[in-house]
Amino acid sequence: MVKEYIASNKDRFLSELFDWLRIPSVSADSRHKGDVRKAAEFLREKFSQAGVDKVEICETKGHPIVFAEKIVNPALPTVLVYGHYDVQPPDPLNLWTSPPFEPVIKDDKIYARGACDDKGQVYMHVKAFETMMKLNLLPCNVKFMVEGEEEVGSDNLGTFVKENKAKLKADIILISDTALISLEHPSITTGLRGLSYMEVEVTGPNRDLHSGVYGGAVANPVNVLCSMIDALHDENGRITIPGFYDKVAELTAAQRKALNDAPFDLEEYKHELGITEIKGEKGYTTLERTGVRPTLDVNGIWGGYTGEGAKTVLPSKAHAKISMRLVPNQVSTEITELFTKHFQSLAPKYVTVKVMAHHGGEPAVTSTDSPAYQAASRAFEDVFGKTPIPTRDGGSIPIVALFKKELGLDTVLLGFGFDTDAIHSPNEHYGVKNFVMGIETIVSFYKHFVKK
Amino acid sequence: MVKEYIASNKDRFLSELFDWLRIPSVSADSRHKGDVRKAAEFLREKFSQAGVDKVEICETKGHPIVFAEKIVNPALPTVLVYGHYDVQPPDPLNLWTSPPFEPVIKDDKIYARGACDDKGQVYMHVKAFETMMKLNLLPCNVKFMVEGEEEVGSDNLGTFVKENKAKLKADIILISDTALISLEHPSITTGLRGLSYMEVEVTGPNRDLHSGVYGGAVANPVNVLCSMIDALHDENGRITIPGFYDKVAELTAAQRKALNDAPFDLEEYKHELGITEIKGEKGYTTLERTGVRPTLDVNGIWGGYTGEGAKTVLPSKAHAKISMRLVPNQVSTEITELFTKHFQSLAPKYVTVKVMAHHGGEPAVTSTDSPAYQAASRAFEDVFGKTPIPTRDGGSIPIVALFKKELGLDTVLLGFGFDTDAIHSPNEHYGVKNFVMGIETIVSFYKHFVKK
Repeated sequence: MVKEYIASNKDRFLSELFDWLRIPSVSADSRHKGDVRKAAEFLREKFSQAGVDKVEICETKGHPIVFAEKIVNPALPTVLVYGHYDVQPPDPLNLWTSPPFEPVIKDDKIYARGACDDKGQVYMHVKAFETMMKLNLLPCNVKFMVEGEEEVGSDNLGTFVKENKAKLKADIILISDTALISLEHPSITTGLRGLSYMEVEVTGPNRDLHSGVYGGAVANPVNVLCSMIDALHDENGRITIPGFYDKVAELTAAQRKALNDAPFDLEEYKHELGITEIKGEKGYTTLERTGVRPTLDVNGIWGGYTGEGAKTVLPSKAHAKISMRLVPNQVSTEITELFTKHFQSLAPKYVTVKVMAHHGGEPAVTSTDSPAYQAASRAFEDVFGKTPIPTRDGGSIPIVALFKKELGLDTVLLGFGFDTDAIHSPNEHYGVKNFVMGIETIVSFYKHFVKK
Repeated sequence: MVKEYIASNKDRFLSELFDWLRIPSVSADSRHKGDVRKAAEFLREKFSQAGVDKVEICETKGHPIVFAEKIVNPALPTVLVYGHYDVQPPDPLNLWTSPPFEPVIKDDKIYARGACDDKGQVYMHVKAFETMMKLNLLPCNVKFMVEGEEEVGSDNLGTFVKENKAKLKADIILISDTALISLEHPSITTGLRGLSYMEVEVTGPNRDLHSGVYGGAVANPVNVLCSMIDALHDENGRITIPGFYDKVAELTAAQRKALNDAPFDLEEYKHELGITEIKGEKGYTTLERTGVRPTLDVNGIWGGYTGEGAKTVLPSKAHAKISMRLVPNQVSTEITELFTKHFQSLAPKYVTVKVMAHHGGEPAVTSTDSPAYQAASRAFEDVFGKTPIPTRDGGSIPIVALFKKELGLDTVLLGFGFDTDAIHSPNEHYGVKNFVMGIETIVSFYKHFVKK
């Protein structure tokens, strides 16, 4: 009956999602401020059409938060669904095979920025809610909080949560912003990495210089920045920041085994990425490197002449964006401070260095024996016919730690994407099957969660 | 009489030069192709007004070459003046205090892209020629060859020279594209560095990846490029490319002494550049590092997300423009090959590396006891009241070596800029005094050169 309703409304569900995907809600780019709000208003509209009691656009210092709720009976449990309607910048645009904000279906996948991260996954909840309302199956209360700043660090969400504890009162958090191993191997993410995102600026001479007249006699800030970045890892792929690993929780042998029992094909992994060799911290597997080990990556670098042709310039400045993924029990504010101190200490006296912090988030681990996790596990069994495998995800959803801290609530990460969905990349996509089975699984979750 | 003519026509000379500077003849940027030609046509016009026998715009595969000549008497010696009318790109635009192509005079300096390099210095020759014609003082034949591709490697000049040896027949080359120590310490450049300009591309995964999902498990091409660039210098500031120094001519103790006798104030140098420490190859002075030692500088680097805000991307590609300044007797084609081999050898197997050569040029040393150099020396004495100091310049004018090889001609580098004129930088400028005294010195050079 649920299956039937979803099947017969699938095309409408998709066309609604497409309308939402056409709104370029890029939170990082101030030129899209208006589009971000449009995306919020679109969502408000869909919530009210789906039958919530109330829905509101809550202003913040940045982009707004959409809050909606349906209270069936105050005595019943309450599920709080979190997601985000903002998306990553689409560049490099030239690598998209179809325009990022003109969604299309190719071999049963939706191609568009935000298709998977996170509009597509949020919209499964909107349509699961509609389904339960239409079929009179909603067994408990539900609240929705969908923000517009997840891709830029959820700067204003903390304040909102602190100031609205009563409004957000619930029994469990449900988030669909993670990935499955595959449709054959459903999985539930039980761990997330934290984040410290930094930007650095290295300044040499007070102006761009002629590299012939000055080259060899004056430190080149690009060369210096490269040396400083190189110094952030040692020959074993470990990060050299003093104290960086102090709080890292090492897994037990059993935990490591469980983690590595997840199906993983290294050859397939390399083939899909077009690489012949992987690289990472010595002594750990790929699943451990992405799941339970902290990392440091340069996300962007620029300096000097980057245009067409050749310019013999010795630049005045060089810049880089550098982010670190954190694991339990690292604390992002502490790591940000350790990075800043260390990077400054790496600066030779012939340059000056500025270090700025963009944003951070805390790592999180969720329990696998909570009733909510068990309900999610059964829901997967209903729809996928298999018990989901608990996995660790390399990404970050800082809200999970925030929820625990501020509301004392656990989270279930009911994600339906694939790691290969190219989120944050050109040609982001999301399987239509994932979308449909996701809706079914969410409906089934409510059933098991409330079942006495 | 010469002084008077120049003084009474100075304002016109400057306003003509300003008209030329307003044409953005940026040879590196294809969008300015038309402007480059406009600048050539402007020059043709000024040559014919100044009284040459003939002037022509010679087509090449790239930007055209302006050739002009005045044959007084085939029995007399011939001076061949070389220069270039193309300019460097003006970016970063936001650092200019006045628009690069709207010349203005501020505290007796002309501010504009090309004011010194090389339109301002070329125009001294045009006006020196006009002066000699008007005052009936031209003592010999003169030819002018002004190209439009010097800032992008003079790709088509070699062919032009090879194919026009008769047309270019002369006794000496005169080039004004270098700098003086100061008006109090006039100097003549007797050595120039060569150049190899490379571009490299490092590719990791076949697409930009989410740095959370893949970070720590897949090599980041930006981090890898930084390590490779860092590996190009050792702890003594020496370049690590095998064979790089094999052909470098070491100076004799006497030559080093002469070179270091040139007035140089390190504190003033650092102060003017806004740095507290210099950096360079161990065991050499600043004048040696810029004058007689080869160098390697990153001229530009880019990769990943460089826009506003934060994007947690593990980029697919990273790029850099890297140039090397060469000294006698290094050969740019050989160095280009050594760099390519070495850079490829530095590539770890988890990335692929592409190395492309932009352009190169050979180093050159000019004699100080030729009659032409002596004539130049006397000309400086006439106008500056001091014997010029022979110096080595860090820049490159590949044409000097080319002329020697193809036409068997020596060059006199009669340059009137300052190292601090910010050529290739924002706020390039050229002293009005330098411009005026330059014209006087050029006129005086002809007198001494032809004097029996």
